[in-house]
Amino acid sequence: MERLKQRILEEASVLSADVLKLDRLLNHQVDPELTMEMGREFARRFEGDPITKVITIESSGIPIAFATALTLGVPLVFARRKKTLLAEPDAWSERVPAFTKGIVTDLVVSRSLLSPDDVLLYIDDIIANGDAARGLISIIARSGAKLAGVGIAVEKTFQSGGRLIREQGIRLESLVRIASLADGKIAFE
Amino acid sequence: MERLKQRILEEASVLSADVLKLDRLLNHQVDPELTMEMGREFARRFEGDPITKVITIESSGIPIAFATALTLGVPLVFARRKKTLLAEPDAWSERVPAFTKGIVTDLVVSRSLLSPDDVLLYIDDIIANGDAARGLISIIARSGAKLAGVGIAVEKTFQSGGRLIREQGIRLESLVRIASLADGKIAFE
Repeated sequence: MERLKQRILEEASVLSADVLKLDRLLNHQVDPELTMEMGREFARRFEGDPITKVITIESSGIPIAFATALTLGVPLVFARRKKTLLAEPDAWSERVPAFTKGIVTDLVVSRSLLSPDDVLLYIDDIIANGDAARGLISIIARSGAKLAGVGIAVEKTFQSGGRLIREQGIRLESLVRIASLADGKIAFE
Repeated sequence: MERLKQRILEEASVLSADVLKLDRLLNHQVDPELTMEMGREFARRFEGDPITKVITIESSGIPIAFATALTLGVPLVFARRKKTLLAEPDAWSERVPAFTKGIVTDLVVSRSLLSPDDVLLYIDDIIANGDAARGLISIIARSGAKLAGVGIAVEKTFQSGGRLIREQGIRLESLVRIASLADGKIAFE
């Protein structure tokens, strides 16, 4: 998606060889029109699939996932991140490390919101090592719902998250693929 | 907003005399069309104000705030909740208790995203005691930005949050006002 690439060049900053700061674009401030364009693009790429719900993980994935769900005319579910010591009997949960935060959280989705009749499209803003994504995919598998695929706005292809998900035979579509952040420069694929 | 009242009666459940569970409607699953209707209603109520940005707090406020920002054609900023021990020099932060979680978090907004030229509309899903809302309002005041007002989907008027904000002379609009959850029943005002 050319417009997203352009905005990344204009507004993102490289914090390290691993981390791209997208505060002005994806995870602290968002441009609703650009976000709707991303949502429409994901809806277009998965238009052959009988999606019943869009799912994401709080918080940064919510705007793009909302835009996709609005375009498709289906509900949006967002997995909560919690620090829980006790298992919740009414929820699916998976413990996952958070790449940028150096902490562990539990992803939690209420059992009442996923059923074997659902066909889900999982949308998120960024994929790096993919720990949270694999956690959510595992929750989806346990719920019995089908996963039509994964849509990611920004895939860092020099980290393993996207590749590991594709190796599970899951369709993953990314709008922008970043091959390297070396030397403080953003290199697209 | 009649349609929101109806959906609350159909899909919310009363957990205690203080807590209404809105998991299927606001804070775990959302209906994009209903959310857009809420966003358009907030945009209509504040249409005389020269809003430059919509602001909210992650996570549950994001869909409605996004819908409002999309309608108004302005960016959306969402304050992050963090557990930080160190102050971040580039950010405004306020420590706030979280009503339903029994914990304390820091609300954080990057200084680069708010300026004295901004006129902000603060949108959130629910107001109870209003601790987080007061924290964000304090950040806005410190940034020098103007606050046009606050838009809340569900105000629990038997708790003090909404009243305390109005007593500061701030305009607060709520779409649905709940007067009581006593005896497991939802009583609208």
